[in-house]
Amino acid sequence: MRPLTIDSLNPALQKVEYAVRGELAIKAEQYRVQLKEGNADLPFDRVISSNIGNPQQKGLDQTPLTFVRQVAALMEYPALAELAPDVFPKDVIERAKVLSDEIGSIGAYSHSQGVPYIRKNVAKFIEERDGYLADPNHIFLTAGASAGVSLLINMLITPPTTGILIPIPQYPLYTATLAQHQGVPLPYHLDETSDWSTSLPEIEGAIEKAHRAGVVAKALVVINPGNPTGALLDEETQEAIIRLCEKYSLVLLADEVYQVNLHRPSMHTFTSFKKIVRQMQSPVPLFSFHSISKGVTGECGRRGGYFECTNISEDVIALIYKMVSVGLCPPLAGQIAVDTMIRPPKEGEESYSLWKKETDAIHEALRTRTKTMADRLNSLPGMSCVDSPGALYLYPRIFLSNKAQGVACEAGKQPDAFYALQLLDETGICVVPGSGFGQKEGEWHYRLTCLCPGVDEYVTKLESFHKRFIEKYGTD
Amino acid sequence: MRPLTIDSLNPALQKVEYAVRGELAIKAEQYRVQLKEGNADLPFDRVISSNIGNPQQKGLDQTPLTFVRQVAALMEYPALAELAPDVFPKDVIERAKVLSDEIGSIGAYSHSQGVPYIRKNVAKFIEERDGYLADPNHIFLTAGASAGVSLLINMLITPPTTGILIPIPQYPLYTATLAQHQGVPLPYHLDETSDWSTSLPEIEGAIEKAHRAGVVAKALVVINPGNPTGALLDEETQEAIIRLCEKYSLVLLADEVYQVNLHRPSMHTFTSFKKIVRQMQSPVPLFSFHSISKGVTGECGRRGGYFECTNISEDVIALIYKMVSVGLCPPLAGQIAVDTMIRPPKEGEESYSLWKKETDAIHEALRTRTKTMADRLNSLPGMSCVDSPGALYLYPRIFLSNKAQGVACEAGKQPDAFYALQLLDETGICVVPGSGFGQKEGEWHYRLTCLCPGVDEYVTKLESFHKRFIEKYGTD
Repeated sequence: MRPLTIDSLNPALQKVEYAVRGELAIKAEQYRVQLKEGNADLPFDRVISSNIGNPQQKGLDQTPLTFVRQVAALMEYPALAELAPDVFPKDVIERAKVLSDEIGSIGAYSHSQGVPYIRKNVAKFIEERDGYLADPNHIFLTAGASAGVSLLINMLITPPTTGILIPIPQYPLYTATLAQHQGVPLPYHLDETSDWSTSLPEIEGAIEKAHRAGVVAKALVVINPGNPTGALLDEETQEAIIRLCEKYSLVLLADEVYQVNLHRPSMHTFTSFKKIVRQMQSPVPLFSFHSISKGVTGECGRRGGYFECTNISEDVIALIYKMVSVGLCPPLAGQIAVDTMIRPPKEGEESYSLWKKETDAIHEALRTRTKTMADRLNSLPGMSCVDSPGALYLYPRIFLSNKAQGVACEAGKQPDAFYALQLLDETGICVVPGSGFGQKEGEWHYRLTCLCPGVDEYVTKLESFHKRFIEKYGTD
Repeated sequence: MRPLTIDSLNPALQKVEYAVRGELAIKAEQYRVQLKEGNADLPFDRVISSNIGNPQQKGLDQTPLTFVRQVAALMEYPALAELAPDVFPKDVIERAKVLSDEIGSIGAYSHSQGVPYIRKNVAKFIEERDGYLADPNHIFLTAGASAGVSLLINMLITPPTTGILIPIPQYPLYTATLAQHQGVPLPYHLDETSDWSTSLPEIEGAIEKAHRAGVVAKALVVINPGNPTGALLDEETQEAIIRLCEKYSLVLLADEVYQVNLHRPSMHTFTSFKKIVRQMQSPVPLFSFHSISKGVTGECGRRGGYFECTNISEDVIALIYKMVSVGLCPPLAGQIAVDTMIRPPKEGEESYSLWKKETDAIHEALRTRTKTMADRLNSLPGMSCVDSPGALYLYPRIFLSNKAQGVACEAGKQPDAFYALQLLDETGICVVPGSGFGQKEGEWHYRLTCLCPGVDEYVTKLESFHKRFIEKYGTD
C-alpha cells in the first residue's frame, strides 16, 4: 500500500504557521527535558518561556486566584461543602451551590452555547461595563478566545477570494486560521513610530489593494489592547474604525482579551467596541472576544472565554449554534471560570479582601515589570522598545547589522529568528521572533512576555546577551 | 452598509447537519424552559433527553466516580490536602501530588499535545491492553474524541475530490465534519438483518462507486463498538478490514470510545484495531480514538480524550502537532480525567472498593436497561430492535405506514422526524430520528440512549406512544 505522506494531505494545513509554539518553543522544550534529566551541558540552569502569555506556568510567579479555585474545587466535588465546611468562605459555598443548582454535574455536556445561567451573568457584566443592553442568546461561551476566532473565520471565509484585514504585527492565530481555511490575510501595518497606533488610511490602502487583486475584504480584525504591541486605542480611533467598517461593509472582529491588563489605569481606560457601536447606533456586525486566559485570572489551562454577537441576524446566530453543537460544548471548567471572572467577590463579601489583595499584586507586578523592561531595553544600543500601556508583552525592535543578517542567511534563518535562537542557546530565555507576528520588510523584532519574576536578573540576562551580540556583529 | 447575511457566508458550513443537537433537541430545550418557568400546559412534567450520550445530565442517574472527582478537586485547590486531610483517601492525595509535581498549575497551558507524563501513562495503558508497544510521542490528548476526529478529517481532505468511507448508520460528527471541510462522504451500509454487522463487499462497492465518480477514497471510519448500532466487530472482520485498507491504501480511523461499554462481557471482548494492526504487522496508517465522555467515566463536560497514531510518519505527526499548537492545548480538567480513567485505583489501594462498587453499578444499570428496552421495543408491532451488545444506545427500526408518511410529508418532515416530534410532544422524551444517522431509503429508525433511570416507566411511555401512533396511522 502507499504510505501516508505529507504531500498527500490537505495543502492548506501545510501553509499554517504558528511561531508562538514553533521552532524556538520546541527547542526550549528539549532544553527543559535535558535539564530535568540532568544530562545537559548548558550555559544556563533553567529555561524561561517568555514566548507565550501563560501566567501560571512553572517558573513564573502568578498563583491562581483563591476564589476561582475554591469555587472550582466545590464544583468538582460538591460533598466538600459538608465534609470540610470550615475550609471555604461562605460566599464561595453559596456561589458553588447556585452554580450546581443551575448546571447539575460539571461532568455533563452543557448547552452547546454555554450554560444559560452563565451567559445571563456575562450579559449583565457587559451591560454594567458598557451601559448598553446585552442578550444572553447572542453570547457564546468558548474553549478560550481562540476557538471562537477560529470558528468565525471559518464561517466568514468563502475560499479562495475572501480576505480578512489583520494588523501587523498580529497574534499569529489570525494568519494560522486564515491559512487553514484558505482565506486571504490582508495586512495593515501599525505605526511603531507613534506607539503602534492604528492608521485608517493604512487600512483603506489594504482594502483597495485587495480589491485590485480580486479579493473581497470581508472582515477587520482589531486587537485592543494589542498583541504583541500592547497599544490601546482611543475612542476617536475606534469610532473612525467603525465608520470605515460601515463604508466598506466589514464585519468587525474585536479581540479584547487584554481588556483589564492596563498598566497605567489613571491615564488609560478600556472602551469596548460594543459600547462604541451602540453609542454610534451603528449597524456594523461585531464579534467581541474575551478570555479567562489573560487579565488577572490567567487560567489558560481551563480553556474558557466567550464571544458576543452584536448586529448579527438570528439566522447567522443559528448557523453558529449549529457549528458549535457539532463540538458538543465548551469545557465546563472554563465556563465556571468565566462566571468567577465576570462576577468577582464584591466588597463586604467574605472572599473580597483576599481577592483584592491577589489581583492588586498581579496588576502591580505586571506594571512594574513592563516599565522596568521597556526602560532598560530601550536604553540599549541597537534596540528600541515602545513602553506598552497594556497586555502582557513587549515587542522591541532590534537593529541587526548586515553582518548579522548575512550569517543568519547562511544559517538558513530569518535574522530575528537567528537572534532569538542565540538568545535561547546562551541564556535559556525563549522569545518569539517578529517574523512570527509580522513586521515591515527589513525590520526585526521579538516578542517577550512581561511575566517572569526576578525582573532585574532577567533583564540583565537580556542586556548582556544583546551587548555580546552587538559586539560580535556590530550595528550596521 | 450591507448587512451580514447567511448567503454571504462559507457555503460549506451551511451544508453541515448535526441531528443529535438539531431541531428535536432545540424543541426539547424549549419545553424544559417552559416547565421550569411553570407556564407550560404540557402532557408531561419533565423532558427526558434520550438524544445524547450524556450520562451525568440532570434527570439521569449516573453520578460521577468519586475517585475522578477527588483527584480533580485536589488539582483545582491543592491546599485541600492540608486543609482537609481526612476527607481524601491516601491514594488520591498521592495521585494528585504526583500529577501536580508533573504539571504545576492546571491553570497553565500544557504541552499542546498534552501533558507528557499523562501521555506516558496512556502509552502504558495501551501496552497493557494490547500487548504491543505504544509511543507517548504518537499520542495526542484532545478535547474529547470529536476534536481529534475533526482535525484529522480536515487534514486528510483535499477538497473537493477526497472521500472518506463512513458506516451508515453513523455518528453524525463524521458527516458534519466532512461537510465543513468539503470532503465527500462515502457511505457503506451496515447490515441490520445480521445485528448491524460490517460487510466487506459493501465497503469495496462504495470505494468503486466513488472511483467511478472521480472521488478518491482516502480513509475508512469504523466505529467499534458501534454508534448508534452498539454492534461489536469480531477479530476476523477487523483483520479483513485491515487487509482492505492495505489493498486500497486507506487510512483507518478507529472510533473506539465505547470500548468498555460491553453489556455481555462473558460473551464479548473488545479488541483494538491497534492490536490487530500490530498482530498482522500491517503498515496501515491508523488513528485510534478514545474518550472520557463514555465508558464508566462519563465525564462529557470536561472535554477529554486522546488519539494514538500508528504507522504515521514523523513529518505527519509534526504537522498534527503544529495544528494542535494553534489551539494551544486540550483542557487540563479533561487531561487529568484521562489519567484517572486509564489508571483507576488498583486492588489494595484505599479508593479501590468504592471505585469498584461505583463502576460495577454503572455497568449493571446499563446492561439491565439495554436488555429490557431492546426486549420490550422488539415485541411491539411495527417495530424491530437489535439487542446491542455494546455502547450506550439502541437504534430501533420503525415501520411507518403510507398514511403516516403522507402526513409527515404534508408537514414538511421526514417520516421518522415526524414520529420523533410526536413522541417529544406527547411524552417529553427526546430521541434522534434515523435520518440524522443515515439509513436505507424507505427505512426509518430512531436512536435513543439507554441512560434513563426508572426504565420500566420510561419504556411504558415509549410503548404506549408507539401503540397510539400505530392505532392512528396503521402499519402499512
